[in-house]
Amino acid sequence: MGPEATILMQQRLLRAVPAEDDFDHIPLLIDMNPQVPSRIAHLIEGTGGDPAPVLAQMARRLETGGAKALAMPCNTAHSYAASITAAVDIPLLNMVTLSADQAGPGKVGILASPATRITGVFDKALTRVGATPVWLRDDAPLLYAIRIIKANGATVEARNILRAASEDLLAQGVDTQLIACSEFSLIAEAASAEARVIDSLDVLVDAVVAFATEKG
Amino acid sequence: MGPEATILMQQRLLRAVPAEDDFDHIPLLIDMNPQVPSRIAHLIEGTGGDPAPVLAQMARRLETGGAKALAMPCNTAHSYAASITAAVDIPLLNMVTLSADQAGPGKVGILASPATRITGVFDKALTRVGATPVWLRDDAPLLYAIRIIKANGATVEARNILRAASEDLLAQGVDTQLIACSEFSLIAEAASAEARVIDSLDVLVDAVVAFATEKG
Repeated sequence: MGPEATILMQQRLLRAVPAEDDFDHIPLLIDMNPQVPSRIAHLIEGTGGDPAPVLAQMARRLETGGAKALAMPCNTAHSYAASITAAVDIPLLNMVTLSADQAGPGKVGILASPATRITGVFDKALTRVGATPVWLRDDAPLLYAIRIIKANGATVEARNILRAASEDLLAQGVDTQLIACSEFSLIAEAASAEARVIDSLDVLVDAVVAFATEKG
Repeated sequence: MGPEATILMQQRLLRAVPAEDDFDHIPLLIDMNPQVPSRIAHLIEGTGGDPAPVLAQMARRLETGGAKALAMPCNTAHSYAASITAAVDIPLLNMVTLSADQAGPGKVGILASPATRITGVFDKALTRVGATPVWLRDDAPLLYAIRIIKANGATVEARNILRAASEDLLAQGVDTQLIACSEFSLIAEAASAEARVIDSLDVLVDAVVAFATEKG
C-alpha cells in the first residue's frame, strides 16, 4: 500500500532481529502495490474501486509464493481483513486486533485517518478487550497530514499536526494513545512525550518476529 | 539478498519517481530472501550451497507473481545472471552490464567485494565497452567493510575503509570509480569527492524507472 510504510516496516523488522549476517534475517515476500484502490476514497468519499478483491488477490499471490503468514502495514485496509482471510489458508497477523489487545483496557485515544474511524474497525477490536475508544473531535487535520506525508514525506507541518492531536487527546484525559496509521508511524516521536504511545506498526513487527521465531 | 540493500533500492526508487500520491509509484514484487546461499562463501571460499538454483527459483516465483522485469541489487550475484535469465521469459535489468555501459570507456576503478573481482563479471562487461577495469592492489579491507556493514550497518569504520580505497584508486590515476557492491551504496558518499563516482545501484534504479515508464 503506502510504499513509505512498507519500507518502514522492513527497517523496523531489520532492527528487531538480532543479526550478525544476512542469514539471520526473516525472509519476506513483499507485494508493494501502490495501485491498490484508495481506501480513503472507497470508505469516505464513496468513489473509486473496491480494494477488497485486489487485496484478496495479493494475499493469494503471496500464499502461492510461499508466504506462511500475512502482515499488512495499513490500519485502514484492515476493514477488508475478512476478504483477505477468506481468500487464503495462512493467517493474517491482524495489526488492529493485536494493537487493541496491547492498548486496552481503559480509555484509548486513536491517532488515525478518518477512514479508519468511519470503518469502526478499532471500535470493535477495542470494545472486545474492554477498552473505550476515544477519537479526536476534529480529525480533518489528520487526514491532511496523511496526504502531506504521502506526497512530501515526514515534514515539520505533518509532525506539528500529529503533536497537536496527541495533546488534544491528553487534554481529554486520554493517556494511552494508539498510532493507528502507518504514515504516522513515520513520525511517531512527534506524539506527546507525556502519553503512553503504542505504535501499531511496532505491534505488527513484534508479531512477525514472534511468528518467524516460532516457525523458524 | 542483503536486506539493507533491498530496502535502500526501494528508497531510491521512491525518490526517483515524482509522486503526489501512492498511485504514482512503481509496483514492486520483492523477494527479500536473506537465506540465499552466501555468494562470497560459494565464489571465494568454495564452501556452502550454490546460489544459482535458489536465484532461478526466486526469479520464476516473481515471474509467476506477475513481474514484468527482474532487478537484483547485488553485484556479486550477477555471476549467476545466466542461470536467472535461463529460468524466465522476462528480462533481467543487468546491473553489471548497465553500469559498465555508463562507466566506460577508459580506466574504471571498481569498489567491490573480492568475490565480484574473482568472478570477473565486471572485467567482461567493461572490456566489452572498451574500458579497462582497475582493481585495488589489496581488497581484503573491502571484504572486511562489507561484513561490518552487514552486521552493524553503515559505521564510521566502514566509511573510512571505503574512502581509503577510493583515494588509493585516485593515486593510481583512476578518476572514474564504480561502486559495485550494494553495501557500499549505503555509504557511497564516503568515496573521494575528487573521483567521478558511479553507483551501480543508482544505475539499476534508473533502469527500473525507465522500464516502468516505457511499459506504464
